Amino acid sequence: MSITSQGSSLARSINPHPFDPLTPQEIRLGFRILQSAFPGVQIRINRIDLQEPIKKDVIPYIEAERLRKPLPPKPARLLYAYFHRLDTGACCKALLNVDNASVVYAKELPAGVQIPMDVDEITEIEKLCDEHPAVRAEIEKLKLPPGVRVCNDPWMYGADNPNETRRLFQCFMYIVVVDHPENNHYSAPCKFSPVFDGHTRELVRMDYLPGGADNQTVETQPWKPVDTIQYAHDLLKEPLRTDLKPYIVQQPEGASFSVEGNRVYWQKWRFRVGFNNRDGLVLYNLTYDNRNVLYRLSVSEMTVPYGDPRAPYHRKQAFDVGDVGFGLNANQLSLGCDCLGHIKYFDGYRSDSKGQPVLLKNIICMHEQDNGLQHKHTNYRSGAATVVRNRQLVLQMICTVANYEYIFAYILDQAANIELEIRATGILSTVPFDNQNGETVRWGTNVGPGVMAPFHQHMFSLRIDPAIDGFNNTIYYQDSVPLPEDENNPYFVGYTTEETVIDKSGTADTDVSRHRVFKIRNDNIVNPITYKPVAYKLQVAPSQMLIMPKKALGYQRAEFASKPIWVTKYQDDELYAAGEFTNQSKRAQGVETWVQRKDSTENEDVVLWHTFGLTHNPRIEDFPVMPMERISVMLKPDGFFTKNPALDVPRSSQNFNKSTLHPESCCDSVKSKI
Amino acid sequence: MSITSQGSSLARSINPHPFDPLTPQEIRLGFRILQSAFPGVQIRINRIDLQEPIKKDVIPYIEAERLRKPLPPKPARLLYAYFHRLDTGACCKALLNVDNASVVYAKELPAGVQIPMDVDEITEIEKLCDEHPAVRAEIEKLKLPPGVRVCNDPWMYGADNPNETRRLFQCFMYIVVVDHPENNHYSAPCKFSPVFDGHTRELVRMDYLPGGADNQTVETQPWKPVDTIQYAHDLLKEPLRTDLKPYIVQQPEGASFSVEGNRVYWQKWRFRVGFNNRDGLVLYNLTYDNRNVLYRLSVSEMTVPYGDPRAPYHRKQAFDVGDVGFGLNANQLSLGCDCLGHIKYFDGYRSDSKGQPVLLKNIICMHEQDNGLQHKHTNYRSGAATVVRNRQLVLQMICTVANYEYIFAYILDQAANIELEIRATGILSTVPFDNQNGETVRWGTNVGPGVMAPFHQHMFSLRIDPAIDGFNNTIYYQDSVPLPEDENNPYFVGYTTEETVIDKSGTADTDVSRHRVFKIRNDNIVNPITYKPVAYKLQVAPSQMLIMPKKALGYQRAEFASKPIWVTKYQDDELYAAGEFTNQSKRAQGVETWVQRKDSTENEDVVLWHTFGLTHNPRIEDFPVMPMERISVMLKPDGFFTKNPALDVPRSSQNFNKSTLHPESCCDSVKSKI
Repeated sequence: MSITSQGSSLARSINPHPFDPLTPQEIRLGFRILQSAFPGVQIRINRIDLQEPIKKDVIPYIEAERLRKPLPPKPARLLYAYFHRLDTGACCKALLNVDNASVVYAKELPAGVQIPMDVDEITEIEKLCDEHPAVRAEIEKLKLPPGVRVCNDPWMYGADNPNETRRLFQCFMYIVVVDHPENNHYSAPCKFSPVFDGHTRELVRMDYLPGGADNQTVETQPWKPVDTIQYAHDLLKEPLRTDLKPYIVQQPEGASFSVEGNRVYWQKWRFRVGFNNRDGLVLYNLTYDNRNVLYRLSVSEMTVPYGDPRAPYHRKQAFDVGDVGFGLNANQLSLGCDCLGHIKYFDGYRSDSKGQPVLLKNIICMHEQDNGLQHKHTNYRSGAATVVRNRQLVLQMICTVANYEYIFAYILDQAANIELEIRATGILSTVPFDNQNGETVRWGTNVGPGVMAPFHQHMFSLRIDPAIDGFNNTIYYQDSVPLPEDENNPYFVGYTTEETVIDKSGTADTDVSRHRVFKIRNDNIVNPITYKPVAYKLQVAPSQMLIMPKKALGYQRAEFASKPIWVTKYQDDELYAAGEFTNQSKRAQGVETWVQRKDSTENEDVVLWHTFGLTHNPRIEDFPVMPMERISVMLKPDGFFTKNPALDVPRSSQNFNKSTLHPESCCDSVKSKI
Repeated sequence: MSITSQGSSLARSINPHPFDPLTPQEIRLGFRILQSAFPGVQIRINRIDLQEPIKKDVIPYIEAERLRKPLPPKPARLLYAYFHRLDTGACCKALLNVDNASVVYAKELPAGVQIPMDVDEITEIEKLCDEHPAVRAEIEKLKLPPGVRVCNDPWMYGADNPNETRRLFQCFMYIVVVDHPENNHYSAPCKFSPVFDGHTRELVRMDYLPGGADNQTVETQPWKPVDTIQYAHDLLKEPLRTDLKPYIVQQPEGASFSVEGNRVYWQKWRFRVGFNNRDGLVLYNLTYDNRNVLYRLSVSEMTVPYGDPRAPYHRKQAFDVGDVGFGLNANQLSLGCDCLGHIKYFDGYRSDSKGQPVLLKNIICMHEQDNGLQHKHTNYRSGAATVVRNRQLVLQMICTVANYEYIFAYILDQAANIELEIRATGILSTVPFDNQNGETVRWGTNVGPGVMAPFHQHMFSLRIDPAIDGFNNTIYYQDSVPLPEDENNPYFVGYTTEETVIDKSGTADTDVSRHRVFKIRNDNIVNPITYKPVAYKLQVAPSQMLIMPKKALGYQRAEFASKPIWVTKYQDDELYAAGEFTNQSKRAQGVETWVQRKDSTENEDVVLWHTFGLTHNPRIEDFPVMPMERISVMLKPDGFFTKNPALDVPRSSQNFNKSTLHPESCCDSVKSKI
């Protein structure tokens, strides 16, 4: 068949690494393969993306790379497609083999299982809503003054009915008070919210939102103008600060990293930058000084349940990875805005609804940063001080999910630490609230006249596929506990650690009161000085888990967020903590299911999942754009080396750093300010 | 009297601000006042330092400054002195008034109460130990080869006997294998440890240290040479890294701060940099946009109990603030080493044992840093992105306490946040351990041949004297809890906050499982939009508290470290969490005592004390110099403003930041590295 052979030759000419993201040629090829499998059927592409390669086929390949041995054949290059049959509305999935341009399988998903929302679909629903006569009729009732209009944000519908099988969108409506590209419509939410069927494109229902602190809804009334809270600088009433001086990071000799395709070399680290529509940024095959550390690292899921108990807000629970995809939502970054210094950008691709590739330019940036001191010691007798600064390599992705922003930064350093820092920023999801007379609610914060920001949680799942000096590892935790009060501890000051191996797939809790530390060790390799197996530890972010009870549907959809630690035995296709399909899911099919296998997880190919997050009861200071809230987890070597691995980093010196001294006589300019 | 009148005129000519550190003239004056009060008695100065001014006298003064009103008289300028009577050996304290050069009081402290160790004294004990015949006799037994010698670190003795009243020092001995200013003697600890009387200068006892995993000690044996673990670059066996490129912070227009004496102006912040021998860096009178935020902020105490149960290690429990003083231990910082960019340094002074001032040059540094993004939002419809970077002002002090280093950084930002970041680095306190045949202990980590680093805790107490829009505040905590499962919460997703006011002086626990947040509010001022009192919240660092049980002496000496939160009603002279005198203390006289008053603390002048820290079970990677371990707490406005206070910060732009793009074709140089 001509399509196949043309595609196959195309694919061969690309010859990507198994961890490389999908190329535009592969997206086109995938679409052609898929079309040829459905002759005469109209299909609409939801997504064509990289299928994670089979791990057992990848390991010999990357191990040969690491050991500089002849390379074995590459694992099969696979991609998957989500699509709709336009005749039946069915959600479908296909697995495609790029190497031989074949369909591995194509299947219709069970009724009620929804594939994610896609970019074109969201745009279409938004337009549909804007133009729908019933919506326009509601807008009419607002009797808006000239120049004021309405816009809408289509939301994932969530779930409250186990029998719902339609593909639904809830559109939240806002008043646009000024025609400005940065108008903050979230400051003026409307009290009606249409629900559309994504397949039939019909209006399913017009929801009306409560106006006060109770459940009461009213018919749409003429809008009473309010002072909206704006962030655009030319909409601010106050002047901008004028006393911030430039701060320029110069790297006159360039960056300390080098890049070959998606492979990165920095200090003793080697790894590959992966990208897909769902996870966005993925780090693969991290080695330090040519020793294996991690096979794969990514944020596997995130859920944001809201605490406002009233309909329809009870369904507000985004799964920003599974319902849409961090890759699809990743910002196209700009030089000099999102990071300082010497920047390398990586691009990605997505398919549109017609199966054509769309370039996602600059969706990952990489740069070095200085993070203050890494280590210091002064010998007080000689006065000799050794000072080593903490140079870091940062890989950053910023995702906009409608109103909100997440900044994900993987940070590697010279002491072999790996940090994931997440910053939450952007605009709070708001609801209308008649608060002008002192009203408050128990589940939210007034952030402006007529607008309230409900309490909510952001729960992340970091998926760690470890390879501590090899691919079979053991996960355990250590608690710090007092020694028994016996003759060996006569002054009661002694303490020790208690160790618990997670030898079957399952869960564990964090415990600050016992300083519980989770570790990943390789039982097959013993440190020659500590006499303990080589290990990394996970510095967790102990967090409140889901506040809602188990019987809530939102809990069952996101059971991963009910426990901070999950351990599973590796299986291909188990990548996402809440399961593959989260959009309108009725219950999860993720870690909570996989741990039930009770696989042996001692000295096996294991995966460690860490759930952590923010209980975010908004401050008014979080509006209209939120100063970032930071949360961080870190992997640190713990008995992996035989000493501080950063000892060979050159010392900090004025000759290298070229700092400047503040002049002493600056009082004249100051006095006028007092 | 001539001394007095001369002193008084000196003092008037200095005219310091109430929060300014002591001047060298004041130290000299203080010594003269003190001497004149003890005619014919030989005294040895331990410390002459600033006495905290009387708060009720300071407030009218700083409020007049803030409101630009005529200044009232300054509060009395006081200093205190600790000293020894050389005739009796008694520890004494005097309070001195600089304004009229008078002694307010001078008293002998009760037997057994020890004033801190001082710099000259430590040097003298170190020398005494080096030269003592009994110590030399032990060293002889080591039969060291030529070029190898022994040194010692005098330690605070700690406590294990309620009846001990002598002033004692425990000297830990180490073998110096190479004559190098950065030789790491902590890699070769000896097995004997003399105890000296600091007053009589007599050898009290020769302690012998366990050699193996049990309590057994042996007579000193000839030293068996070991490979020590070194950090000095010219003692490393491996080559230094050569691939780290320069990273230069340029501020071509200078810093955005300005300084007048110890008063600092940066963005909307105003504050005073204080310094004393005990706390080291203190921040006073912080206002934001001319609104009061804090009266005083400092690290009030730190204790480091060790978990090795064996004598004499059971007494190893440093109080690095009370036993010595962070101010005395602060490093003299160097341009281009300890921070990047445009740096302002502050000096301090201490007195020597003869009452003469000693300059402590550059012990505090101040600079700006870029901390990535502060806030970002992209309007996905228009593509318009607002990006504001997080410029911070950092005040840093680095303290070397013999082997170990603490880096304290107060970080202010443009969103009115105040962070205290502490980095622990330096060299682990080690003990000898015959571990060459695979031996391990349950309370420590082998870090090299013959050397083990015991488990320990670092417990800090941050003292927050708040002034949220005024000096009467209320401290409370909020937990996030599910709403009742009733008709108002039919889907069980609703949650709310529960509030507990700490209305009597007392303690509270952190609670991650309820996302407990501590807040400081001003009940007298209501936010016009949230309708709640203006407030700041304390983002705590939930930590394991003291592991030892209450009956341990070490617990009773450091009860502040048994609870994370303490609230007291302000009283002058209540500055230090474990009390004024910690050196060889038998029990604390600090927060645990003051909370017993059960003062009313609602809408009063309150003080919030937060205990947090690290349970530090050493990694071998922490040796020989430890990659920093970071812990951070933050004060954040929460309903203090009516919106994000950083909205008026100019946006991040390439024009301002001048970043550079990584060139795309760099593969040639890389390929050779693969």
